[in-house]
Amino acid sequence: MHLRVALLGCGNVGRALLTLLAEKEAVLRERHDLTLGFTGGMTRSAGGWLLPEGTSAAELVSIGWPQGPAPAGAQAFGDDGAAFAAACPANVLVELTTLNPATGQPALESIRAALGAGRSVVTANKGPIAHGYHELRALAERQGVALRFESTVMDGTPIFNMVEASLPATEIRGFRGLLNATSNYVLGRMAEGASLEEAVAGAQRAGIAEADPSNDLDGWDASVKATVLANVLMGADLRPQDVVRDGLGAEAMRRAKAALAPGQMLKQIVEAERAGEGVRARVTLAALPPSDILAHTATGETALRLYTDTMGELTLVEGDGGPGQTAHGVMADLVAIARSWNSAPEQGRSDA
Amino acid sequence: MHLRVALLGCGNVGRALLTLLAEKEAVLRERHDLTLGFTGGMTRSAGGWLLPEGTSAAELVSIGWPQGPAPAGAQAFGDDGAAFAAACPANVLVELTTLNPATGQPALESIRAALGAGRSVVTANKGPIAHGYHELRALAERQGVALRFESTVMDGTPIFNMVEASLPATEIRGFRGLLNATSNYVLGRMAEGASLEEAVAGAQRAGIAEADPSNDLDGWDASVKATVLANVLMGADLRPQDVVRDGLGAEAMRRAKAALAPGQMLKQIVEAERAGEGVRARVTLAALPPSDILAHTATGETALRLYTDTMGELTLVEGDGGPGQTAHGVMADLVAIARSWNSAPEQGRSDA
Repeated sequence: MHLRVALLGCGNVGRALLTLLAEKEAVLRERHDLTLGFTGGMTRSAGGWLLPEGTSAAELVSIGWPQGPAPAGAQAFGDDGAAFAAACPANVLVELTTLNPATGQPALESIRAALGAGRSVVTANKGPIAHGYHELRALAERQGVALRFESTVMDGTPIFNMVEASLPATEIRGFRGLLNATSNYVLGRMAEGASLEEAVAGAQRAGIAEADPSNDLDGWDASVKATVLANVLMGADLRPQDVVRDGLGAEAMRRAKAALAPGQMLKQIVEAERAGEGVRARVTLAALPPSDILAHTATGETALRLYTDTMGELTLVEGDGGPGQTAHGVMADLVAIARSWNSAPEQGRSDA
Repeated sequence: MHLRVALLGCGNVGRALLTLLAEKEAVLRERHDLTLGFTGGMTRSAGGWLLPEGTSAAELVSIGWPQGPAPAGAQAFGDDGAAFAAACPANVLVELTTLNPATGQPALESIRAALGAGRSVVTANKGPIAHGYHELRALAERQGVALRFESTVMDGTPIFNMVEASLPATEIRGFRGLLNATSNYVLGRMAEGASLEEAVAGAQRAGIAEADPSNDLDGWDASVKATVLANVLMGADLRPQDVVRDGLGAEAMRRAKAALAPGQMLKQIVEAERAGEGVRARVTLAALPPSDILAHTATGETALRLYTDTMGELTLVEGDGGPGQTAHGVMADLVAIARSWNSAPEQGRSDA
């Protein structure tokens, strides 16, 4: 089958996605009978374009869009993301704009527009899923289209696709994870003797931490991920601000490090469990004993442990992540959409 | 949809499966529109029965088969597994007989018979997959039916279903795992100061090790699992005897333990990598440094790390496993078969 894809946002992840899809073109065709055509693209700085006949990922890589020009023959299309999502001549909108953790906007509005226009959506942006999952999912179901977001937590590590495919009758009772790579890096360097400032500077040099690492160190990034996991896997209806953030930040890290017992490792841990009718989630600095495998995650690693009724404890660990891994998750979501269409040929195939 | 299932072999895993399916009856119906009817059963000691109209997992649990009687109205059907697999009035044969690691028989013959008769097969038995994967897969494809075996490695931990669903265009370049729970238990107790004999006796008391633990300690069990992983995930064509088993067994364990450097942990490790056109796999006792997360797997845990082109390193860790986890994997495979049928309504639905 042929999927027509429009790309909203194209930073590091978008460029990695185009490169990956160009590399995997033959594999997708041979293993999955799947071809992709890019019928639109938009970034904040480069503006938008539409090209109903589509072009390949390889061609977009070759012309260097979005630094380079839009593909030959494309019409320009301003810079309004929601209008682009509504109008692009695509089956699937791939939404890769920058996270706004406080509101999920403007991605939330763009995804609403795409679903409302009968398009499936793949996003790597955890903001709109944290802030609008149940609403967006209901809209996708009404429209008979897909909403997929593997890359919102632990890059493209198979969490949501794995649970869907491999834990089909399982209840997720809780989870515990180490989801913020910057915190893990900084705490790991501090354990080796670096000061907090040295560790943060090292994370910035390594391209892991942003210029302002407080979103990571204060647990806000982890809260957004915990919200996505709790709402999707446990049926909760949390917002990031509902996640308790306890004893985090630079001062707390210094104090907790000074109080560690021998053999303990300090980690920023996300936890969720059922509490009455709801789910309670929190982010804390935890002094893990050496018997806990999460204590031994290396500086670039992230990890998630699911507590389940049918499989007991199941833990996923990602090695060093980055835009390539995030792109992998988006590709996996595109393949999943193609497969679900094969199983429901009349569903969601209407083009704009 | 309704799946008619016949059960060949019903020991600990089979009984756990019936209990699990009885518990999950409503979930399977509500989430997946799936109902199951058991139309046949056979064990070595209880013999076989056929019941074309089928009965429920709950009913089989309630009458206590196979210790108790066959369901009311069932016809007796001798004790020939391959004849049962060929004749049972089922869409899916669930094959749960005892492992024969040297040949995969008689399970291999039973699975051939079921596939040959147009039935899908789910097996938790690694013998036939290690010895006949490529042949059985080709036969299943010719017949338009499914062959699934999630529970052959690390109980029901999502390995094969995860790779299929979530790594759809990924190349698995190698793997490294700690797949034998008995070895991990014994080595863990030895690290705490127990003698080999004490550790083995403890594993036997805990129900982890068999009366003769040499299959586990000598790496034979791990070789069979390595064969399944290499052949399925890496396209190899190994047999268990092709897996190099190096420095294993009781004497080697004592020597390696004495030679450990401080902080190192001794683990029985399975490794595979590409070598020319093929795949080289081996089982060894490895002295893991504390920086390796596999060094910290607890005594009942197993783990598998995949080396991939699109996701880098991806590690799965199972907590304490057992028949319940194995049963989970069989259930996941049954749901996967039901789903693939929904996507190909004419495929493999012929009843015997």
